[in-house]
Amino acid sequence: MEKIAPVRGTRDFYPEQMAVRNWIMDGWRAVSRRNGFEEYDAPIFEYLQLYTQKSGEEIVSQLFAMQDRGGRDLAIRPEITPSLARMINQQIHSLPRPVKWFSVPRLCRAERPQKGRLREFFQWNIDIIGDDSPLADAESIFTAIDYLRSVGLTSRDVVAKISSRSMLAAWLQELGATPQELDTIYALLDKRAKLPEETFQALAVEKIPEAGLRNKILELFQIDSFEKLKASAPPAAQEEVARLETLFHLLEVMGVRDYCTFDIHIVRGLAYYTGVVFEVFDRGAELRALCGGGRYDNLLKVLGGPKVSATGFGMGDVVLEILLREKNLLQTAAVPLDFYVIDAAAELGEQTVQTACQLRGRGFSAAFSYKRLPLGKQLKQASSQKARFAVILGQETIDSRQVTIKDMASGLQKTIALPEFLAGPDKVFAAGT
Amino acid sequence: MEKIAPVRGTRDFYPEQMAVRNWIMDGWRAVSRRNGFEEYDAPIFEYLQLYTQKSGEEIVSQLFAMQDRGGRDLAIRPEITPSLARMINQQIHSLPRPVKWFSVPRLCRAERPQKGRLREFFQWNIDIIGDDSPLADAESIFTAIDYLRSVGLTSRDVVAKISSRSMLAAWLQELGATPQELDTIYALLDKRAKLPEETFQALAVEKIPEAGLRNKILELFQIDSFEKLKASAPPAAQEEVARLETLFHLLEVMGVRDYCTFDIHIVRGLAYYTGVVFEVFDRGAELRALCGGGRYDNLLKVLGGPKVSATGFGMGDVVLEILLREKNLLQTAAVPLDFYVIDAAAELGEQTVQTACQLRGRGFSAAFSYKRLPLGKQLKQASSQKARFAVILGQETIDSRQVTIKDMASGLQKTIALPEFLAGPDKVFAAGT
Repeated sequence: MEKIAPVRGTRDFYPEQMAVRNWIMDGWRAVSRRNGFEEYDAPIFEYLQLYTQKSGEEIVSQLFAMQDRGGRDLAIRPEITPSLARMINQQIHSLPRPVKWFSVPRLCRAERPQKGRLREFFQWNIDIIGDDSPLADAESIFTAIDYLRSVGLTSRDVVAKISSRSMLAAWLQELGATPQELDTIYALLDKRAKLPEETFQALAVEKIPEAGLRNKILELFQIDSFEKLKASAPPAAQEEVARLETLFHLLEVMGVRDYCTFDIHIVRGLAYYTGVVFEVFDRGAELRALCGGGRYDNLLKVLGGPKVSATGFGMGDVVLEILLREKNLLQTAAVPLDFYVIDAAAELGEQTVQTACQLRGRGFSAAFSYKRLPLGKQLKQASSQKARFAVILGQETIDSRQVTIKDMASGLQKTIALPEFLAGPDKVFAAGT
Repeated sequence: MEKIAPVRGTRDFYPEQMAVRNWIMDGWRAVSRRNGFEEYDAPIFEYLQLYTQKSGEEIVSQLFAMQDRGGRDLAIRPEITPSLARMINQQIHSLPRPVKWFSVPRLCRAERPQKGRLREFFQWNIDIIGDDSPLADAESIFTAIDYLRSVGLTSRDVVAKISSRSMLAAWLQELGATPQELDTIYALLDKRAKLPEETFQALAVEKIPEAGLRNKILELFQIDSFEKLKASAPPAAQEEVARLETLFHLLEVMGVRDYCTFDIHIVRGLAYYTGVVFEVFDRGAELRALCGGGRYDNLLKVLGGPKVSATGFGMGDVVLEILLREKNLLQTAAVPLDFYVIDAAAELGEQTVQTACQLRGRGFSAAFSYKRLPLGKQLKQASSQKARFAVILGQETIDSRQVTIKDMASGLQKTIALPEFLAGPDKVFAAGT
């Protein structure tokens, strides 16, 4: 019969890789919870319309689309935010505000796989819904950094680049751009740091044909610090600049200002952002963004709900794992084996199985060999499975129901009555041996 | 804009439902680990051929099938065992034996939703690969029961019904059935407990036209205890009956015999089972099976690998949750909030945010109000969010950098220096107040 390969751009999680994934996701969950977020999830597929209504028909080519038996169009989720908006809209009147939720969904995109971008991945999402204060934006950014900091990434390793679409909108309109032109200008700005200067200038001429407006906009794009931004802001943009200043002040109060910088190039690709936008990069700038997010105050309305303000971010596991591996910070979720139960005499095989099962029933992890093996080989297995203690049933078990407990780290051992051991197996942890 | 519904047969996991799902899945993981299983996972979609090669073309109608950009046929996984077999086959020469792996995959089936059966669900899978002893079968069944027992289901609530396909195969052939007829007879047997007697008899006549053979087979189907099975087994089936007896003895040794019974009706729907088969039901027999599994020694070969013996089971979350809810045993994963930080004076707002963020950075969960609220309202929020302690910043913080820690359960409180508190926030847990 034919051997079948996995689909390109997907990953098999053998136990070793699974332990890494679990460590990353456990960290996301722990940091979400300590920052006051509650976990939610949505189905892995939705009606296709949920994505086209938000992003237009062109999104379809990036989706894994399918039909159900009734011929209805479905798609595997490429992001969870539309599902979140749908869920919030369903319960909009009964949910307390602000809603602070997180999720760690599996997402799929029908893209060409490349470094840092797969067709199936996991993404940590946090969202704060129903609060339009800079404090909510600050807490969102803090939470991303709180995680990165918790795994050992310092402000010399990563940087959160922050800007504001509402600030840009006010400023650009003051320069003479129409509201309809804004999306084109955002897309141009988004490309500035990614294109060679010459290519970028040609694109600018194409996108903003009027030279006077174009030059003013290109001058704005040159602003490379928050001080310069503040000094040259026109009156119409000052309120939004002040809001951004409040955000930076709050990030200072929160103790993560050193991770943050103003960067006018950050506008985010997705159309739905309306206010603060940010992306986190490795300082070496060799990888794609680790994390991106911002304020999106219109999405719930686009999906049939009321206008409710919202802010949040997504952090994927693929780029994060590459960076943590490069920095030698990658860990695996620890799964200790408490006891390895060994029979030192052939007739004790069943009692060994029984003892292991009794330990499991009491909540401890316990293993034993399926095969009858010499004592030395069983001890080697205990060691290779990283058991904390070996429980050895031998002649003393036959004679007087005693077992020998061996501390695998120190090698020390002691013999105690089996019923006494089973009555409190955790006492050996406290006592060592 | 239009409001979009979720797809029928899928579930939205609002935080309350998510806490239930997490509790169930945390339990599956904990019991897997204490029984010595390592976690793995596979992609959510595979090449369609992985499923058709194993189960034939008729499976396609039960799958969510789709195509990638290159026109290759893909499908969302309806079960994880084919992916497991694919992964094992890829590393067959480097994996130690036995392989003991578990997974808690999300699965999708294009079925009509009904009670206990959804189009998207989670299923705990454990598998032991590379060992053909009854001990491996026993450990698989033990692990299922170990979980059910751990959540409070007793042997009066649930029962594991056990039989053996290899025993049936030997017996049926002794009665005169050909190897080619076995699958038809298994399918008939599978229906016996599900159909009215008359309908079943008519089906039997249709499927086994020869009256002599049919009557002998229907007589075999009447056997309703292991004792009767053993007493009437023909010599050709005695080895397999003895193997089944060893299994029941091992389940006795393991301390779960009272959960187990022999039931000749258990054959399992899927074609790939070759030996022991079992299903777990509620004793009331009002729900679908909670869990099903058995030995499948040919699957790896069907998927392009060598012949390697394997045994395992799957337990879905949907029927399990219904039963646990009925028995009032359902719990939620506990997510305690350690500290709710409160400002009792307007000018302390920023310091409140700072204190909460410092607590989070030290690994504790901490929350605060986004809005300026009176002290009483903030205390109410601390209480409604089930905080263990309120940390109150007030006049004494302004005067002498002190904070008041209030134990929300006892109401007791004490005032200590803020730096001292931040140096060891966990000391308040030990001390109470």
